[in-house]
Amino acid sequence: MLESTFIRHLLRTDPPGTASVLLPTGDDMAMLAVEGGRVLAAIDAVVEGRHFRPGTDLRLVARKALLRNLSDVAAMAARPLACVASVTLPRGASDADARALLDGLREVAQAFACPLVGGDTTVHAGDDPLVVSVAILAVPALRGGRVITRHGSRLGDLVAVTGELGGSLEADGGGRHLEFPPRIPEAIALAEALGEELHAMLDLSDGLGIDASRLLAESPSLAIEIDVARIPARRGLGWRRAVGDGEDFELLFTTGAEPPKEVSGTPVRVIGRVVERGDGPTVRLLDGGRVIDGSAMGYDHGREDPR
Amino acid sequence: MLESTFIRHLLRTDPPGTASVLLPTGDDMAMLAVEGGRVLAAIDAVVEGRHFRPGTDLRLVARKALLRNLSDVAAMAARPLACVASVTLPRGASDADARALLDGLREVAQAFACPLVGGDTTVHAGDDPLVVSVAILAVPALRGGRVITRHGSRLGDLVAVTGELGGSLEADGGGRHLEFPPRIPEAIALAEALGEELHAMLDLSDGLGIDASRLLAESPSLAIEIDVARIPARRGLGWRRAVGDGEDFELLFTTGAEPPKEVSGTPVRVIGRVVERGDGPTVRLLDGGRVIDGSAMGYDHGREDPR
Repeated sequence: MLESTFIRHLLRTDPPGTASVLLPTGDDMAMLAVEGGRVLAAIDAVVEGRHFRPGTDLRLVARKALLRNLSDVAAMAARPLACVASVTLPRGASDADARALLDGLREVAQAFACPLVGGDTTVHAGDDPLVVSVAILAVPALRGGRVITRHGSRLGDLVAVTGELGGSLEADGGGRHLEFPPRIPEAIALAEALGEELHAMLDLSDGLGIDASRLLAESPSLAIEIDVARIPARRGLGWRRAVGDGEDFELLFTTGAEPPKEVSGTPVRVIGRVVERGDGPTVRLLDGGRVIDGSAMGYDHGREDPR
Repeated sequence: MLESTFIRHLLRTDPPGTASVLLPTGDDMAMLAVEGGRVLAAIDAVVEGRHFRPGTDLRLVARKALLRNLSDVAAMAARPLACVASVTLPRGASDADARALLDGLREVAQAFACPLVGGDTTVHAGDDPLVVSVAILAVPALRGGRVITRHGSRLGDLVAVTGELGGSLEADGGGRHLEFPPRIPEAIALAEALGEELHAMLDLSDGLGIDASRLLAESPSLAIEIDVARIPARRGLGWRRAVGDGEDFELLFTTGAEPPKEVSGTPVRVIGRVVERGDGPTVRLLDGGRVIDGSAMGYDHGREDPR
């Protein structure tokens, strides 16, 4: 699959980089040293027909584009600094469309104190899909410039999530995948409550199965065991939906200490544990007596039915 | 035109922003305060059918995407820090295509010490145009964290350019618009040579006419007078091509002192002067006895013949 080819090639061939790269490609954000400080950066796009259905309110499309990036900021337990957006519009777009996109970006920018400081717009030659790319900058929010990466889980850690999972896409193409609260205050509160015992974290974008296996990408001797009965599925959806729907934008983390039951008004639920991998799958879903390989369970943005 | 609607709306409605925004939207890059330092950010996209013709070598497409951003860094007399890229590929793209794009980005990243630290890839639902969005971070290169903005030209300033202008697009769709050296060392050398007398600067992306008028966007009482005989047209192209072809990615600047004749091996040419605007056009091209309004002369990326 092309998407993973690009990313894998990027990860594999990215050179060690200059001294200014504190945290390279491979996490939710990269971290760079600037004179006397640290800055984080990431980029993420939403594409018509892939991340939203044609006809979706453009204000919501733009909001989603920035919200996704803010969710990456949360995943690092960082604080947003600013964002820039690049918009490629179909030829048939109107001035009102351009304004709706900008309004959506600016609403979210304002709500999260993440000013939109630059933009670039192109109009397609034809009636081609809308693409909104947003790059976001952030700064560490924790003492000492600490951020929480995806890597560093330890044997015996508890595995936990915020909020509820599943059901991000409504039948009409709307739903939570378009409007979700990036868990920035929750992430900072978790990091402050757990301190050094918060070992690894990411935001759930593709689904609990795929994303949990990402937490162990650099830990070949570890696996994650999840008790499906403990997964906080939204509105009584079955665990398969909670694991596979994707775009939850909740936090998934591993910790050496019992996490708080709630942070910033959002419930926190322990759903599993970090165990030895041995010859088994990276992500193991325990359903009564059965062990199911969940390592690849999630939403595939390349599939036929776009959201 | 949609592109300008988006940008104008962005400029007009962008709130004063937080204390961390040192330089908001409206320049080649925005500048932000981070603990103890300053960081600059910009985003720019290249779109198939707009910025390059279908069939163009994807390595060159990716190189152009990053080179354009590096040219914005030059325009601020800053130094690149890192970049992130978002790629949206047509469904029919191959793994080799994805690799060619990444190779192009990484070649330029390495050549300009601007590590690629993050990527995002999406595959279109159909055979839709390739979009490569690159966001770039930079840090001030001058003493005291100074950068050079577009604004600040003064009455009587000399107007000068680096290099040669015109002819960026060859008949076959190739040419300099795909491969150009961002004038980063030249910009820093100019700023060091001219000191406080370097008043305003930008990189020529849309064409000398349009871009010169941008230098005076915040100076309603000033105009720029350019002697067409002094414009350094490439290979004997007429001045109309030098003014209108666009994508020169040379530096255009105003200065209160005579600039060096050459910086970092690149010629510098004085082509005009900042004068009082009165009732005349913002950019005046002096062709013998005639005065021609050049304020809107440049390349329109929305026109039918894509490069």
